[in-house]
Amino acid sequence: MQESGKNKLNVEIFGQHYTVVGKEPVAFLRMVAGHVDDTMRQIAAANPRLDVTRLAILAALNIAGEYFKLKEAYERLLAQERAPVGSVPRE
Amino acid sequence: MQESGKNKLNVEIFGQHYTVVGKEPVAFLRMVAGHVDDTMRQIAAANPRLDVTRLAILAALNIAGEYFKLKEAYERLLAQERAPVGSVPRE
Repeated sequence: MQESGKNKLNVEIFGQHYTVVGKEPVAFLRMVAGHVDDTMRQIAAANPRLDVTRLAILAALNIAGEYFKLKEAYERLLAQERAPVGSVPRE
Repeated sequence: MQESGKNKLNVEIFGQHYTVVGKEPVAFLRMVAGHVDDTMRQIAAANPRLDVTRLAILAALNIAGEYFKLKEAYERLLAQERAPVGSVPRE
């Protein structure tokens, strides 16, 4: 669905309906929602007594952890990219 | 706090107490928890009527969106890294 340049998508996350809105392609929004749903289901399977709020917060913590690890890897790669290959210090 | 090679940290996220456990350094765990708390507070400020569960799920969606965008950027950089600079196709 297209609305003022934005895509809108109805998704189900852990049994609740959400409308996800973003400039990103629908496939991207679907992937994002699927990842949150999957993460919540994995945490719920390991911790069946958790209420949905704590489950959602733990999912957000997990995903934020993945984000910062990837950010570190990205920055390492970027630093490597900028260092000329085989360069030696000048005397 | 150290427990069987894991770090343990008490954090407050949107007024609720959580114990975050991970192999990562305490500073990393604190950064992750701070990012989830900040994201929830930003969404709550823009949508004061949302309940905490929806707020947490929207925060998870936002952070997952950041993650997948960074993943795309990381993969682009990796592909660039692998392509030899100034290479020309063989005839």
